[in-house]
Amino acid sequence: MQTWIEVPDGSPFPVTNVPYGIVSRGGGRPHVAVAIGDHVLSLAAAAGTGLLDDALRDPELGVVHRDVFDAPSLNGFLALGRPLWTAVRSRLTELLTDPSYEGALRPALVPRAEVRTHLPVEVADYVDFYCFEEHASNVGRIFRPEQAPLLPNWKRLPVGYHGRAGTIVVSGTDVVRPCGQRLVGGDPVYGSSLRLDIEAEVGFVVGTPTRLGQRVPTVDFADHVFGAVLVNDWSARDIQAFEYVPLGPFLGKSFATSVSAWVVPLEALAAARTPVPAQDPVPAGYLRPAGDAYALSLAVQWNGTTVSRPPFADMYWTAAQQLAHLTVNGATLRTGDLYASGTVSGPRPNSGCFLELTWGGRDPVTLDDGSTRTFLVDGDTVTITATAPGADGTTIGFGEVTGRILPAT
Amino acid sequence: MQTWIEVPDGSPFPVTNVPYGIVSRGGGRPHVAVAIGDHVLSLAAAAGTGLLDDALRDPELGVVHRDVFDAPSLNGFLALGRPLWTAVRSRLTELLTDPSYEGALRPALVPRAEVRTHLPVEVADYVDFYCFEEHASNVGRIFRPEQAPLLPNWKRLPVGYHGRAGTIVVSGTDVVRPCGQRLVGGDPVYGSSLRLDIEAEVGFVVGTPTRLGQRVPTVDFADHVFGAVLVNDWSARDIQAFEYVPLGPFLGKSFATSVSAWVVPLEALAAARTPVPAQDPVPAGYLRPAGDAYALSLAVQWNGTTVSRPPFADMYWTAAQQLAHLTVNGATLRTGDLYASGTVSGPRPNSGCFLELTWGGRDPVTLDDGSTRTFLVDGDTVTITATAPGADGTTIGFGEVTGRILPAT
Repeated sequence: MQTWIEVPDGSPFPVTNVPYGIVSRGGGRPHVAVAIGDHVLSLAAAAGTGLLDDALRDPELGVVHRDVFDAPSLNGFLALGRPLWTAVRSRLTELLTDPSYEGALRPALVPRAEVRTHLPVEVADYVDFYCFEEHASNVGRIFRPEQAPLLPNWKRLPVGYHGRAGTIVVSGTDVVRPCGQRLVGGDPVYGSSLRLDIEAEVGFVVGTPTRLGQRVPTVDFADHVFGAVLVNDWSARDIQAFEYVPLGPFLGKSFATSVSAWVVPLEALAAARTPVPAQDPVPAGYLRPAGDAYALSLAVQWNGTTVSRPPFADMYWTAAQQLAHLTVNGATLRTGDLYASGTVSGPRPNSGCFLELTWGGRDPVTLDDGSTRTFLVDGDTVTITATAPGADGTTIGFGEVTGRILPAT
Repeated sequence: MQTWIEVPDGSPFPVTNVPYGIVSRGGGRPHVAVAIGDHVLSLAAAAGTGLLDDALRDPELGVVHRDVFDAPSLNGFLALGRPLWTAVRSRLTELLTDPSYEGALRPALVPRAEVRTHLPVEVADYVDFYCFEEHASNVGRIFRPEQAPLLPNWKRLPVGYHGRAGTIVVSGTDVVRPCGQRLVGGDPVYGSSLRLDIEAEVGFVVGTPTRLGQRVPTVDFADHVFGAVLVNDWSARDIQAFEYVPLGPFLGKSFATSVSAWVVPLEALAAARTPVPAQDPVPAGYLRPAGDAYALSLAVQWNGTTVSRPPFADMYWTAAQQLAHLTVNGATLRTGDLYASGTVSGPRPNSGCFLELTWGGRDPVTLDDGSTRTFLVDGDTVTITATAPGADGTTIGFGEVTGRILPAT
């Protein structure tokens, strides 16, 4: 596929990707755009031309949802559901590849460098899973050395918990080192976290809601999930270690969770689908069939040094299984729900968190500037990127989720 | 104080209470109302008379927020903040006690039996604490008999976790027995929960948001918290027991959490303030001063039989301390955040959950009809009520949070 927009070689945003985000320019209103090459196409402006009318026509109501992109979040568009998501994507592909539309759409194109990106989704509930065996085992070994590393429930169901939706921020937001209580020589001390960490994850964005009591079988995954983002679930390990028994992580996580600015639609990930790793024992019926794994290649940069390439395709429970589990008790989904994979980790050094990478701080890593690190130092920047096979032999990217650590206040 | 509205003796809603909720009548739009005696006063209609204009005038913008009550949730009003909450309450007291306003307001009064109540708050984040020593100790004894009943963190900080905001429902909503995985003879089995339980709690509703990084000292509690509701945090103990290590409760709780229809403003609880039980060891600085306890008397009815009177005044950590803890890591508050106390429990039989009341099912309770129970049976109804000392020697109530169990689907 060729687009009439110049796309630099190696751009994460070829025409086979076309991820959605929220942008503003100057003092203008935040609105929906898609990223292509070094540009963004304002969908608010594009819809204003009428060229998206057919794709935005509601099959039941007949109305055209032309205003859905003139909004500060994707939620209105997410609520329209799979048929319209697919119709809009098909139409955008047509518009971006047929040069006869350039004249009409050129005014809606803006260099990406000239826009500010905003949180793409108003997050309803945020769930964080724990679906990488390497991570769950390593955390077990480090936090609970006296027990078996993997707990009995782990291969029976996708273990997860609710995180704080209100502190999800867009990539680029600074992260202030949190304060809380941690143990020093067995006694709790209040102060700033000394073991500030990342968790490199992939998150899935729910568009189509359910009613209370409705389960989502794994085969219905794509009816409800719109697309995927990168997630950095910043974690204060010392605060977490003291607080988390028996009700799970709380303040050790709730100070900030960063997500990438661009939501990659599921269709763009079709070429990245790959067989699921073996699941043994056979999962419960509501977790079958497993659905697809995705061959995403993540990279974690610490102050510019790539310290890890966590293997997302190794995820034990698929995103479809996570969703089926989340709803098997009848819990509703709402438009804007976000659920994340848990830390993407393979054998060291391809760990998705520094707790594992440095084995609890025992084994420092050396950055390209010669400095060493165990946990995050004030001023450090962490950037997580990901690529995936796209259609037509292309490679697509997620952009990045990045954040810099500011001192505690 | 005398009101020109007839208030039956023993009504939970004397003129010293005036709680807020969302009601609709017939097919009409849900809107904000206050409860008084056996009536509700539509604030949407009352504001339309102009009689609330002075109270609703924004001191900074000068505008009158007259439309804030013509809304399907309290969130718009909650966002106005403490000065306007207080001004509106003062004005409502004046209007309800001065007979000269009867003519103007009588058309806005509707018998409570004629309205339907709705979820009063669009809940942003939901946090559930664990602040009753009796409950935490009992759950420890039942779930972790090999360990000390109270964990080392419990007297150092208010232990809590995030719950699912999207499955919070208003009192009266039926609760479908959830399905999930539970252990049978050591092996996980998928099916409906056999140990379905309640948790009688009190929840606090946040109105005034904070910015990321802003802590809320205990003394600022009333600037942010608008009022209180009753909460029943329905719990599937068998699902919870298998899933909850290490990340905390998930599907065992996320199928439904019921809240009372009426939010009792903090001002109405002023007469219920009571000294905090002793806290030993001395809490960390950010948890001091402790703030107030509240002398609420809860009652739990199981199919009409009062089985427990959990003592809310015994709560170890105050609501102000819970809020200070929740924000000490810089986590933002949003309008509509709800945080609950955790199960209100005293020594048996005054337990706020049936896990404790029946000691994990060992000691059945006998209901007035002669039947016995350990956990909930399909068709059972649980109703939690609470009263508190109000101004002028009155007793105020929270109404109720009630729900009936339907069979699993």
